[in-house]
Amino acid sequence: MDKFIRIDMATRKVTTEAVPEKYKALAGRALTSNFVNDEVKPTCHPLGKNNKLIFAPGMLTGTTAAQSGRISVGGKSPLTGTIKESNAGGTFAQKMAKMGIKAIVLEGMPQGEEFYIIKIDMHGVTIDTSPADILGGCGNYNALAFLAEQYGPKVGIAITGPAGEYRLPSANISFRDPDGNIRSAGRGGLGAVLGSKKVKALVIDDTGAPGVTIHDPEKFKEAARTFARGLTTHAVTGQALPLYGTNVLVNILNEAGGLPTKNFTEGRIDWNTNISGETMNEIITKRGGKVSHGCHAGCIIRCSQHYTDEKGKYVTSGFEYETIWGLGADAMIKDLDDIARIDREMDDLGVDSIETVVAIAVAMEGGLIPWGDGKMALDAVKQISVPTPLGRIIGSGTSIVGKTCGLFRVPIVKDQGIPAYDPRAVKGIGMTYATTPMGADHTAGYTIATNILKVGGYVDPLKKEGQAELSRNLQIATAAVDSTGMCLFIAFAIMDIPEAFNALVDMINARYGTSITADDVTNLGKSVLKAEREFNKKAGFTNLDDRLPEFFEYEALPPHNVVWDFTPEEIDAVYKGL
Amino acid sequence: MDKFIRIDMATRKVTTEAVPEKYKALAGRALTSNFVNDEVKPTCHPLGKNNKLIFAPGMLTGTTAAQSGRISVGGKSPLTGTIKESNAGGTFAQKMAKMGIKAIVLEGMPQGEEFYIIKIDMHGVTIDTSPADILGGCGNYNALAFLAEQYGPKVGIAITGPAGEYRLPSANISFRDPDGNIRSAGRGGLGAVLGSKKVKALVIDDTGAPGVTIHDPEKFKEAARTFARGLTTHAVTGQALPLYGTNVLVNILNEAGGLPTKNFTEGRIDWNTNISGETMNEIITKRGGKVSHGCHAGCIIRCSQHYTDEKGKYVTSGFEYETIWGLGADAMIKDLDDIARIDREMDDLGVDSIETVVAIAVAMEGGLIPWGDGKMALDAVKQISVPTPLGRIIGSGTSIVGKTCGLFRVPIVKDQGIPAYDPRAVKGIGMTYATTPMGADHTAGYTIATNILKVGGYVDPLKKEGQAELSRNLQIATAAVDSTGMCLFIAFAIMDIPEAFNALVDMINARYGTSITADDVTNLGKSVLKAEREFNKKAGFTNLDDRLPEFFEYEALPPHNVVWDFTPEEIDAVYKGL
Repeated sequence: MDKFIRIDMATRKVTTEAVPEKYKALAGRALTSNFVNDEVKPTCHPLGKNNKLIFAPGMLTGTTAAQSGRISVGGKSPLTGTIKESNAGGTFAQKMAKMGIKAIVLEGMPQGEEFYIIKIDMHGVTIDTSPADILGGCGNYNALAFLAEQYGPKVGIAITGPAGEYRLPSANISFRDPDGNIRSAGRGGLGAVLGSKKVKALVIDDTGAPGVTIHDPEKFKEAARTFARGLTTHAVTGQALPLYGTNVLVNILNEAGGLPTKNFTEGRIDWNTNISGETMNEIITKRGGKVSHGCHAGCIIRCSQHYTDEKGKYVTSGFEYETIWGLGADAMIKDLDDIARIDREMDDLGVDSIETVVAIAVAMEGGLIPWGDGKMALDAVKQISVPTPLGRIIGSGTSIVGKTCGLFRVPIVKDQGIPAYDPRAVKGIGMTYATTPMGADHTAGYTIATNILKVGGYVDPLKKEGQAELSRNLQIATAAVDSTGMCLFIAFAIMDIPEAFNALVDMINARYGTSITADDVTNLGKSVLKAEREFNKKAGFTNLDDRLPEFFEYEALPPHNVVWDFTPEEIDAVYKGL
Repeated sequence: MDKFIRIDMATRKVTTEAVPEKYKALAGRALTSNFVNDEVKPTCHPLGKNNKLIFAPGMLTGTTAAQSGRISVGGKSPLTGTIKESNAGGTFAQKMAKMGIKAIVLEGMPQGEEFYIIKIDMHGVTIDTSPADILGGCGNYNALAFLAEQYGPKVGIAITGPAGEYRLPSANISFRDPDGNIRSAGRGGLGAVLGSKKVKALVIDDTGAPGVTIHDPEKFKEAARTFARGLTTHAVTGQALPLYGTNVLVNILNEAGGLPTKNFTEGRIDWNTNISGETMNEIITKRGGKVSHGCHAGCIIRCSQHYTDEKGKYVTSGFEYETIWGLGADAMIKDLDDIARIDREMDDLGVDSIETVVAIAVAMEGGLIPWGDGKMALDAVKQISVPTPLGRIIGSGTSIVGKTCGLFRVPIVKDQGIPAYDPRAVKGIGMTYATTPMGADHTAGYTIATNILKVGGYVDPLKKEGQAELSRNLQIATAAVDSTGMCLFIAFAIMDIPEAFNALVDMINARYGTSITADDVTNLGKSVLKAEREFNKKAGFTNLDDRLPEFFEYEALPPHNVVWDFTPEEIDAVYKGL
């Protein structure tokens, strides 16, 4: 029997309850977003006692389906003030699912300054005072090792780093991966909510767990096989991602003239080979790191890697295009080793690596850090561990860096930093940034697939035609995928290979004994977006928040010399059509 | 013939035009707010090229009417994102009026980093590169002295300090007063807009100006006499303010249990005599400073003063209750000399002394400055002149301090710091904070008059009844008074003394040859508020922005142990009734 675990951090009282009827068919983002819309006061302060934080595995999490190990975290975002769902890999979600825990909900907040560790196993939930060893400046790498030593080598861990303890708006929530390293639910500052509830970490031990029940195991097995075949045969998920990771995109976006450079003033660099995926592959290969690596059991795309230093020592993994773009092109740091060290530091201190890199480039424009100086950028990030005033500014994200520096060229939507794809040169993604309930987030409706990679058809990135529809359809599909517990990268395969999409639906039906259709999946996605929009509206957001920063409208981006030229009505058409 | 001077800072082109028909009957806040609503793109970035800054004297400015020397400054606020009108004393407004300049409008922004000085005299307008001597860390006191030496001892000057050059959200615009000291249009960060347009200062020389024309001089003279008599006979404007300045309020609000203490966690202190107006009077008298002093020619209330140090040296003037409250009770600094030095520093660096003191108390809660440490608070403010990262945080205002410190107890409305009157214990002022188009601003509808001082009747501050109506009526009256060029303190007299109010109307009619009535004054106030609300709505604000921070709803304030308990509907009634 699946259950909800509710923990009131004001009293440390734990309540285990049957899954409420209305949430029985939901999981992942569908569950977290509906829950937040139902139970969180939309006008509450994100760091106050009325915010709630919910962890939920997806519909297929805990099964043997490839890519199904994602955990969704939901709450009201301290960064954006909107509803937020942020998801990650690691081992936490699969253990929850196998233990029949549909959701863990954290409510209330303690009066004191003490931090807690929440331990969940088949015997129940215990809440202990956190050891001081892992508090304050202690980074996530050491804290995870400490906790694994204390609670056993196979536990799942969700943790917030120093940034979350200090409740900085960029703080993320990190999850231990199969190698003991770090995967993060990065965007939107949910680590600060965990910190506000004085929870340093949740430790989950699935020893003795029953595992998930599959209604029709044979059907499931067959569908899972077809699904996996789709992933391994598609050019993106079968070849590009395993070989170069997401960083395959540096050269592609640079070629497209949509690689935001020097805080979004240009769209192309001529030193792209310094930081490209191809170069990264060469470096890793030469140094004996791992070119390809999965973030959770059952991952067959394996877009992650172990990036190593010159002596072959592990530096970081999950070394993503967006991070490399942000510190590379956008902040003009030309040394991939410098970038890797900063990536590690961001993971270690627990800040969103997208928000922070966009913030660093803005801080360079504002004179806080010299342009292109990887050493000074690393030092600035390290200061988050204290935190010094500079550390606080950087850890507060792009919007606040922009304000403290008095700038108008601040790439944000709903106070969240705009990632690695310039909306003037790739217009579909601009529609997503503007309209997603999450604040600027490429993953919310990744039109790069169709605008640039020609997956699921082709919509010319430089023209206005078709972008609203493209963004809408991808936002719907993404909301559904984020509810399955699947990694978003399955989208490449299911958009191009009908059998793979059908297999995904078949797996859900085989798992639950249902008979949902493709239309039901679409409707699920729509209903998630509607719940999210509803929350935001109740929190005070209007269509006027669905806009890109003004400078995109009058600063033309080389090399195409394009501006953002959609009318308000054209932008609003994205959600009018929902 | 009255005129508009428009200056496009992108090209440094100056256009002098006749006053547009629709603005002919408007002045002061009525002019600035209607102009901003008409001409400024509501969704523009406040620091971008599409914001405009307008300076306008009031309807009676330039005449001999007591208290009529205020200058209104309007634009879109970098602090709040709303429309903003901020007004100040000094000599600038009277010179503009005497020269027949109804408004100076700054538009556009230069490409380069060079700052400019705009010089306006009867021969026209010249724009020169600013001398480096007064840029960077140079404070306003030295800069004003430098400019007076360069342009003559009698010029009027509007200037932005280092904070405005750095475009920090708390930057104000300062005006030279008759003694060469500083009066500021403090709230809302309009100094950052001046800085974004790369204007260091405007210098105005009225040599040869024709002066204002009075349509009926005899009638004017008589009305002005009656008006002045009202001011001198009212207990507040005739006795309390001249004797103790606005700081008379420390003991009064403390007695009422509405003096926000230690970042709004208590409502009363027992060391009030350290910082009270009575103590201040004694100190100034003992040291040979000036107890009473006017901020512009024609001021007969003279609520300002020259606060001197132990050696009798001038430290600051316009040493207001809100500043002393904020550094005193709210930040727990118990030494009035420490507070005076910080006040001087804020004026010198050009930050709003209300925003900054509220921010300092929040910074103390956040651990950036030790509680009650006047020396460290002074040091933090001084860092704005560099600016260091801490200086940037403090100079960015309360909201940003709260975010960088991860706090939920952040007293702001529309990102502007809540001043010196706790809305839980003085409920009428909470209605004003919540609903004024300006963001938290006591001057926008000063219900303290009626809730506490029993001016214009009495509405019990601890009860909900009557507060919406009180706030609405005072917001209307204030919008009208801010359009006359009158100091807001005339409100005490005109609320209690019908002859004084009639004399105000008579002065306007005698000046312009009109026959407006009391109803017309009310309608003027309403129309100003409507224009301001309209701008805010177009900028994305809704009723949900008309709310106090959540903690006021659940943290009871001693000694009355009261919370903010209005429903959304009760708050919205303020403007529904307009």
